[in-house]
Amino acid sequence: MQTSVSPTFSGTGEDPKCDCAPPGNTVGLQYSSGIYKIASWSHITNAHPVPGPSVVTGLASVGLPLGRGLLLLAEMSTKGSLAVGEYTKSSVRMALDHPEFVIGFIAQSRMDGLAAELGYAGKDLLILTPGVGLDSRGDGKGQQYRTPKEVVEESGCDVIIVGRGIYGDGKNLDVAEVRAKAERYQSEGWLAYRNRLAS
Amino acid sequence: MQTSVSPTFSGTGEDPKCDCAPPGNTVGLQYSSGIYKIASWSHITNAHPVPGPSVVTGLASVGLPLGRGLLLLAEMSTKGSLAVGEYTKSSVRMALDHPEFVIGFIAQSRMDGLAAELGYAGKDLLILTPGVGLDSRGDGKGQQYRTPKEVVEESGCDVIIVGRGIYGDGKNLDVAEVRAKAERYQSEGWLAYRNRLAS
Repeated sequence: MQTSVSPTFSGTGEDPKCDCAPPGNTVGLQYSSGIYKIASWSHITNAHPVPGPSVVTGLASVGLPLGRGLLLLAEMSTKGSLAVGEYTKSSVRMALDHPEFVIGFIAQSRMDGLAAELGYAGKDLLILTPGVGLDSRGDGKGQQYRTPKEVVEESGCDVIIVGRGIYGDGKNLDVAEVRAKAERYQSEGWLAYRNRLAS
Repeated sequence: MQTSVSPTFSGTGEDPKCDCAPPGNTVGLQYSSGIYKIASWSHITNAHPVPGPSVVTGLASVGLPLGRGLLLLAEMSTKGSLAVGEYTKSSVRMALDHPEFVIGFIAQSRMDGLAAELGYAGKDLLILTPGVGLDSRGDGKGQQYRTPKEVVEESGCDVIIVGRGIYGDGKNLDVAEVRAKAERYQSEGWLAYRNRLAS
């Protein structure tokens, strides 16, 4: 169970995350250097696969010697996302071509089927899933929410990523309330996981 | 004619540019707030269309009142880029659905044909093209270079974006040398543009 927003580039959150999408050389520099030196403190980073395989090799050249791991954004939770079809399939190929560095996906469902289709049957990687909310189906700004039950039990994802369901708009936060909300997602997620194992 | 790198998130460059790819609400916050307050000083920002239309509406809600404009990354210059086919076509649709805010594309070729195919015949937007180099065909890290002649004269692009062709690895820069290189790209680009007009 994990909460995550996009802090590295927004300055509003706390988790190690880099919504990187530029080419390999640039992304390697962003990961190792710049003002954030992300690779020096972030164990797991995620990247958009849109530039092609060089984004993985560029990040791996920096991250592998440090024992870091990468997640590729194979799908997004937003309405009308372009990370579908051939895009998602190419993301899976890029990940499975680099199993020494890519440990999973940011996605909305398991990728086993696509992996098998690509000749990587039996290869299983982590699925971390954003767009999770218990009280809302969307934010009116393109974000679509599914419940932990839908995400973990029905779609087979491993980790839920919860943002606004826990911290709301981030203003005037009450620490006890935030903790209670986080625990609610934790227990709902765990229940969904147990139900999946039992089914 | 313009030079550009990916400075906003790398800390290594100087041009207003945001390789944004998160959902609408988040991208709106990154654009208006955070440590960069990009919208307050950047006249033109670019975004990856991968989250879908909400990335445009999220940025427009912040940028339009300030008179800002957006470029969508419809294609990338890297080897094996996933910004092809349906992805590129969807990018064009997203742009042309929001002509009040989207002023063009980061792309490798003109988008007129796709626009016509989508029922927007006669709609013409700016094409700004990275991956331009005179002395190298690639960096061995996925980046592929084309010359100003190929980009402007043959592919019909409007603006060349030159990074390492001008500033190299960015270390121990000689200002006079950088200026001379920039002027070389400027004159090659202008020549290619004149040749296109004359042909």
